[in-house]
Amino acid sequence: MEFDTIAAISTPMGEGAIAIVRLSGDDAFKIADKLFKGIGNKKIVEVPSHTIHYGHMIDPKTNMVAEEVMVSVMKGPKTFTKEDVIEINCHGGLVSVNRVLQLVLSEGARLAEPGEFTKRAFLNGRIDLSQAEAVIDLIRAKTDRAMNVALGQMDGRLSRLIRKLRQEILETLAHVEVNIDYPEYDDVEEMTHNMLLEKSRYVHKEIAKLLETSQQGKILREGLSTVIVGRPNVGKSSLLNSLVQENKAIVTDIPGTTRDVIEEYVNVRGVPLRLLDTAGIRETEDIVERIGVERSRQVLKEADLILLVLNYSDELTEEDHNLFKAVAGMDVIVIVNKTDLPQKMNMDELHELAKDYKVVTTSLKEDKGIDELEEAISSLFFSGALEAGDMTYVSNSRHIALLNQANRSIEEAINGVESGVPVDIVQIDLTRSWELLGEIIGESVHESLIDQLFSQFCLGK
Amino acid sequence: MEFDTIAAISTPMGEGAIAIVRLSGDDAFKIADKLFKGIGNKKIVEVPSHTIHYGHMIDPKTNMVAEEVMVSVMKGPKTFTKEDVIEINCHGGLVSVNRVLQLVLSEGARLAEPGEFTKRAFLNGRIDLSQAEAVIDLIRAKTDRAMNVALGQMDGRLSRLIRKLRQEILETLAHVEVNIDYPEYDDVEEMTHNMLLEKSRYVHKEIAKLLETSQQGKILREGLSTVIVGRPNVGKSSLLNSLVQENKAIVTDIPGTTRDVIEEYVNVRGVPLRLLDTAGIRETEDIVERIGVERSRQVLKEADLILLVLNYSDELTEEDHNLFKAVAGMDVIVIVNKTDLPQKMNMDELHELAKDYKVVTTSLKEDKGIDELEEAISSLFFSGALEAGDMTYVSNSRHIALLNQANRSIEEAINGVESGVPVDIVQIDLTRSWELLGEIIGESVHESLIDQLFSQFCLGK
Repeated sequence: MEFDTIAAISTPMGEGAIAIVRLSGDDAFKIADKLFKGIGNKKIVEVPSHTIHYGHMIDPKTNMVAEEVMVSVMKGPKTFTKEDVIEINCHGGLVSVNRVLQLVLSEGARLAEPGEFTKRAFLNGRIDLSQAEAVIDLIRAKTDRAMNVALGQMDGRLSRLIRKLRQEILETLAHVEVNIDYPEYDDVEEMTHNMLLEKSRYVHKEIAKLLETSQQGKILREGLSTVIVGRPNVGKSSLLNSLVQENKAIVTDIPGTTRDVIEEYVNVRGVPLRLLDTAGIRETEDIVERIGVERSRQVLKEADLILLVLNYSDELTEEDHNLFKAVAGMDVIVIVNKTDLPQKMNMDELHELAKDYKVVTTSLKEDKGIDELEEAISSLFFSGALEAGDMTYVSNSRHIALLNQANRSIEEAINGVESGVPVDIVQIDLTRSWELLGEIIGESVHESLIDQLFSQFCLGK
Repeated sequence: MEFDTIAAISTPMGEGAIAIVRLSGDDAFKIADKLFKGIGNKKIVEVPSHTIHYGHMIDPKTNMVAEEVMVSVMKGPKTFTKEDVIEINCHGGLVSVNRVLQLVLSEGARLAEPGEFTKRAFLNGRIDLSQAEAVIDLIRAKTDRAMNVALGQMDGRLSRLIRKLRQEILETLAHVEVNIDYPEYDDVEEMTHNMLLEKSRYVHKEIAKLLETSQQGKILREGLSTVIVGRPNVGKSSLLNSLVQENKAIVTDIPGTTRDVIEEYVNVRGVPLRLLDTAGIRETEDIVERIGVERSRQVLKEADLILLVLNYSDELTEEDHNLFKAVAGMDVIVIVNKTDLPQKMNMDELHELAKDYKVVTTSLKEDKGIDELEEAISSLFFSGALEAGDMTYVSNSRHIALLNQANRSIEEAINGVESGVPVDIVQIDLTRSWELLGEIIGESVHESLIDQLFSQFCLGK
């Protein structure tokens, strides 16, 4: 395919040591040559691919030095986009990197849309759609496990599975076609019938297996929306602080690596917890009262996990009972806090209320019970050992929805065969599931969807 | 010199397309080889310098793929630090870049201190201290002009001037030494006397010329602290909004390039205005009342520029008179706003109050007068054409202080010669000024100062 030459700042905005302006397209080298002055006047178009060159950007309007740079020259197709790529490393200041970007734009590059580099990698056939989607998952990953899931998907692990299933369906359809066209044999109808059933059941089982990973995959990718509820003064904000303090490992303890943007996440044994309404907790310590019944319900509804905190040194009140009613049917862990104080809680009453919920006792003041709580959270969502490394996860809602639809089509095909529906009707269902699976990897997919998917990317990717 | 191998994240923190982990030192290549798996198993230590290699980082503990990367290999001494340098470009996520950093640290690299790469460039003799300081100025530059000043200094423009002056002083001292040692000639004393005077006056004049640029240089580098004062409801917040809206050009209008951190700066014709207490203005529109007299005075004291706003459609009040008193002796521009409304202001009274201050009339509501105001601001601080490109600016407070001290020593030398002080006393003053100038470029400078200077850098530079 042929595209124009695009450019964007590819490093996060902010002051840093190095910033990168990236160009991709047929004119990338030519544009760089108009601006770059290296040692010995060497030309970008003439240097070997995958080499780095020190020099200056010269503003052609003023002939003055605009910036000191290192230019990386990468000749297509062995590049991220399969096109000619230039990466201009400049000093990481806002004025500096914007100046370099403006210069390349003024020499004919077009400002790239968000995700447009990755989109080109997809459109130029270097990666498929699910691999492209994994790129943004990788960037947004909040835990190591989430990153490993994204890495696996980027490497084409999911794609290979999908392709294999599509191949199965295609071959089945081809066989059916042959059988229909050449009905010379007596048992052709039964053969077709049996093969259709066998193949459809196989594909159905494989998709179901994949879908079994989707809950964990989605949690790894998006985090587990978690709400801490409880009466005032039971220790909600202590719990929040303990979780945040113990689990800073989302980012390492290197100075400068923590940022507001990720503060709402805590990493509990590889499970990214997205704590909802934490600001409210920190502020007032009585979320339920503060935000009102209606808003409370809303927050609870969005949650994947409820941490219900109770006071061991107090009797269970009507409010506690109401909280249990409000979270009925959800994933709840009950935390009985303040075990450092004398007991007043009626434990029989508690266990009747808590039913099958996991109950953890803590003294957050004395730093006790946090390990047990983390264990409870982890085992609630990840029964058995979780090894993202050697498993294929489905984590993306779009993929999950398509797999569900594909499996419904397969089910209809199976039901059709079983109830003696004509084979050409069954073919339609199978073809539909083949198409649906294709959408995951970006074959048979609408352009508008592609545009929409890539628009979620950050600039410069 | 010999150092250990350091590593740091060199791109700003945050989610972006690309992040860089940089290594510098003797073991940089060896460490990269322990982690990197490229195509055909090529070794980093064997590839040519200044080449780029696609591959994966493998965690040696698990043998699993840790990240997909591009590795730039640069062999010293033709590198930023003059040491062997590796730049690992990975996906710009927090988990990803931290993971890569952790891997290189676990293989023996040490986490770099802020500015340590630039410090090595200095200690290894690639750049002098004033050039190193320009690096951080460049990153922090808020306007194009500020960046040009930093670029010039980074290129060694200031250094060359300082070196030339030091050379002059050194040669003068040598001549004096010779004359003292070989007093064969009758006129040796007068000759020495004349030469000392001539050379000292020359150096003094040159330093004074340099210091003349310091006010502008400092403003370009640090911004002009600006306070908007005026009675409630005269249009202070409209003025603020006009300045901010018209001057977003500090960063371009590219989505994602504006950030809170620079919002307080506006770029008025290349002059970076740092608006003090803008939050207060936006909030209440009556800064003077709100922050109280004491705090007001403090804010005013910190200001380089006062924008005093008055109401054209109102009489001058006692409060207005008090404001003029409070800003007496400062750089003030008087803004007579609301000229769209009927005049009530007594202009004779105004001009008596305003004295030599520049008076600009505006109707901020009708978008009138902003150009004139900007012209007034620009010409107040930059009389004549400002062309940072072909001028050497001193912008750094440390340099300015050293130049002032050096010039005082020179003055003492001149006074000494003129009043017949013995030549060896004059020599001491000249030597002192030679040393002071040396401190600017980092010769004859204390280690603790160097540590302190580089600690102001961002990580990874």
